[in-house]
Amino acid sequence: MSTAPAPLLRRLAAEALGTGLLATAVIGSGIAAARLSPADVGLQLFENAVATAAALAVIILLVGPVSGAHLNPLVSLADWWLGRRDQTGLDLADVAPYAAAQTIGGIAGAVLANLMYDLTAVTWSTTDRSAGHLWLSEVVATAGLIAVVFALARSGRAALSAATIGAYIGAAYFFTSSTSFANPAITIARAFTNTFAGIAPASVPAYVLAQTAGAALGLATVWLLYPDLAHTAPATAAVPHDTATAPAARTQDRLPR
Amino acid sequence: MSTAPAPLLRRLAAEALGTGLLATAVIGSGIAAARLSPADVGLQLFENAVATAAALAVIILLVGPVSGAHLNPLVSLADWWLGRRDQTGLDLADVAPYAAAQTIGGIAGAVLANLMYDLTAVTWSTTDRSAGHLWLSEVVATAGLIAVVFALARSGRAALSAATIGAYIGAAYFFTSSTSFANPAITIARAFTNTFAGIAPASVPAYVLAQTAGAALGLATVWLLYPDLAHTAPATAAVPHDTATAPAARTQDRLPR
Amino acid sequence: MSTAPAPLLRRLAAEALGTGLLATAVIGSGIAAARLSPADVGLQLFENAVATAAALAVIILLVGPVSGAHLNPLVSLADWWLGRRDQTGLDLADVAPYAAAQTIGGIAGAVLANLMYDLTAVTWSTTDRSAGHLWLSEVVATAGLIAVVFALARSGRAALSAATIGAYIGAAYFFTSSTSFANPAITIARAFTNTFAGIAPASVPAYVLAQTAGAALGLATVWLLYPDLAHTAPATAAVPHDTATAPAARTQDRLPR
Amino acid sequence: MSTAPAPLLRRLAAEALGTGLLATAVIGSGIAAARLSPADVGLQLFENAVATAAALAVIILLVGPVSGAHLNPLVSLADWWLGRRDQTGLDLADVAPYAAAQTIGGIAGAVLANLMYDLTAVTWSTTDRSAGHLWLSEVVATAGLIAVVFALARSGRAALSAATIGAYIGAAYFFTSSTSFANPAITIARAFTNTFAGIAPASVPAYVLAQTAGAALGLATVWLLYPDLAHTAPATAAVPHDTATAPAARTQDRLPR
Repeated sequence: MSTAPAPLLRRLAAEALGTGLLATAVIGSGIAAARLSPADVGLQLFENAVATAAALAVIILLVGPVSGAHLNPLVSLADWWLGRRDQTGLDLADVAPYAAAQTIGGIAGAVLANLMYDLTAVTWSTTDRSAGHLWLSEVVATAGLIAVVFALARSGRAALSAATIGAYIGAAYFFTSSTSFANPAITIARAFTNTFAGIAPASVPAYVLAQTAGAALGLATVWLLYPDLAHTAPATAAVPHDTATAPAARTQDRLPR
Repeated sequence: MSTAPAPLLRRLAAEALGTGLLATAVIGSGIAAARLSPADVGLQLFENAVATAAALAVIILLVGPVSGAHLNPLVSLADWWLGRRDQTGLDLADVAPYAAAQTIGGIAGAVLANLMYDLTAVTWSTTDRSAGHLWLSEVVATAGLIAVVFALARSGRAALSAATIGAYIGAAYFFTSSTSFANPAITIARAFTNTFAGIAPASVPAYVLAQTAGAALGLATVWLLYPDLAHTAPATAAVPHDTATAPAARTQDRLPR
Repeated sequence: MSTAPAPLLRRLAAEALGTGLLATAVIGSGIAAARLSPADVGLQLFENAVATAAALAVIILLVGPVSGAHLNPLVSLADWWLGRRDQTGLDLADVAPYAAAQTIGGIAGAVLANLMYDLTAVTWSTTDRSAGHLWLSEVVATAGLIAVVFALARSGRAALSAATIGAYIGAAYFFTSSTSFANPAITIARAFTNTFAGIAPASVPAYVLAQTAGAALGLATVWLLYPDLAHTAPATAAVPHDTATAPAARTQDRLPR
Repeated sequence: MSTAPAPLLRRLAAEALGTGLLATAVIGSGIAAARLSPADVGLQLFENAVATAAALAVIILLVGPVSGAHLNPLVSLADWWLGRRDQTGLDLADVAPYAAAQTIGGIAGAVLANLMYDLTAVTWSTTDRSAGHLWLSEVVATAGLIAVVFALARSGRAALSAATIGAYIGAAYFFTSSTSFANPAITIARAFTNTFAGIAPASVPAYVLAQTAGAALGLATVWLLYPDLAHTAPATAAVPHDTATAPAARTQDRLPR
């Protein structure tokens, strides 16, 4: 009983809530940054990135034990794909409900951010984000995200996910030219606000396509680096010992000796 | 003997000291930011947010083992509420003394901040903070705080509280339009300084009301996500294994696999 | 054999090296900040604070297992004082050598910072820092430092020291008006550079006096919060379980339940 | 079988990928910072430093269990040197392939950064970085890096490497005048971009020479502080207990007591 997963409805609520809070944090901190630091776009993005990184880490801790804190349809899809043989991942039948919950939650989060800043509930973004180098950036950003998420998972280090994924997204805001959306649900949500973090609806499809390609590349990276699934018992996975289960991880392979 | 709680007086001293230091950090860093970065309000808020986040994490570690590091009357109240059946929370009789110690400590911390910056001990704030979208922000900020605090507690991850709560408040400074007071004791304390972090006394009651509503919403979120209390032994709760006790947390439910 | 302390000379080398690197980080990042961000003193202090916080955490990890990473004569003195009955602290005879190594190392670190920025090896600071509110700030900053260091130690959470103390100093740079020197050895070292982080030699004695008073206040705080010494075995102290040994720390006393 | 290292080719792929991502993060965030914060070079460097620190920590976690996450020819060389007697380090025969993979990966990462920002794939840097005080800074930066990496490793705290090394490099960006390249592979890669993080090819050799001297100094520091190799079993090394194995680390020697 105590090892049964949460009921699907509770897990969907967790995904909707978590993705919604993430959208609120991304968009809300973007509005604050743009209003309060009007003279320097870099500073705006930096404030936005740090707030997003911290919020994302907290949200993963908030809903992780309930739903896995995917917060991202491509993570849900990859989770199913990587676990489909061992029955360790999300059920295929749950992928679409997860994606729907994430997207609906994200949109609600965008509306909440607009309202908290005294804006109309929905204002369609007019920020065009269409260019080859931006799509390349989304491929890179999403590949890195998927690689990091499942590298930790497959080597028994899931307990490090929250801080690590927050740090990754915060950094990727700055090292990609697209500011690293890397998430179809959040991308759609960001179309619902004509503020700093917005994206014009017409720019969304290509972003999502690039993100999907990036997810595939990320899965290939996971397969390259961690070809074997670590059968880590949760109890031992809790502390970050790099070496416990991954075949590649004996003393000789780790950084500092 | 070694498992007995600290005497009430020592716990109250810890709450007063901790909340006082928090008020000092919030107000003091706000004064420094406003004086030293006069040209950019966003930068001021960012400096204020980072200093507050770091200080809050440290203060939770400083007094946590003594009093629980509630530092917030709504956390004390929620702690009693959630533990009232299992006798695992604060005694009802201790809620009011905790709230009093937090408020008195917070005011003393405001005075200390004023004095450290060579200001009169008390200068009533003239910063009006009264608007519907600000109250909405306080509801959201406090709901998130309560949800995060007790999500960690009920899933055996209290050892992550300090860093997580610091990160949450730091992020919420930026993603809410009210800059996330989320704490009646600190709100009252911030009325005692006419500086960056201040709030006009007339704006305090509505803020506290919004925070209280937010706390109720946060408790509902805890109940939604973590309906069962985790009976985690302290020793095993110390390392962050998400999966140990929460019914929802088996391998299949966690983020990265 | 494996539990014997390092030889005194190696411990003194570690203290000199660690304090030297800390002085280099404090002063060097101050020079960079002042040169590169000339228009905003708040941004300069923020860059200085973040670099100092990160460097301090790293340095504590670098030399901690060798010498205890006191890096501060007042920490060495307090360590002796708190452990004098149980023989668990620094030997009284080692306090003066520790303080000398810290001070000499700090001065060498100041010289290195000057040289790395193409300045004369020693340039006496002309920055006057003499005022009652600055001394009050140094009392507060040092009291907080001593309280945090020994609160962690006495409750079996020394493994958290590096990150926590870095975070504390980074925050205190901003919430005290004196920018939180909180360390006589570093204060003296900062007299050797006429740059952002400098302090005029004439201002040093009062700063050190205030710091010493703050250390006494910090010890009183430790005694108030953690009257009993935790006899934690090193192996169990390694993971941060708040509750293991401190009499005050049973489940009911900790933050989130 | 489960303790065998990963095949050499997979380890080389990991080193190439990891160093490539590091170069992308360093150079990409530098381009974003310079474009978006044109008015303040200090803010540019700060944005660059924070993004680099976060990305470096994530990358170490990403590839660490596979290849050790050296990401730096001097770390690979030092790893072989320190482990040559106990056969615990990299094989001498693998040092050159590691260095080649790191350098090739780094260059590819520079090209990727250029492309993500819509620049020509390769633009030779014209940023001259030749001066005695810069070389001194590279000696200091690299000595510190090597000392920190192997201090953690030799005292059974390798699990702390990712966050610690990220923090070190982030701080060193600001406390050294050279902005802490500290890595020959990344230095070479940075010649391939005429942007914020670039270095003119003619300035590379002296930087690499200074870094190599710094690595030797770092090894001397490791020998001074941690003369004995800790024979820590990976499983016990995973949690940060400072005191487990290093001869110098008994209770009395650690920081806060």
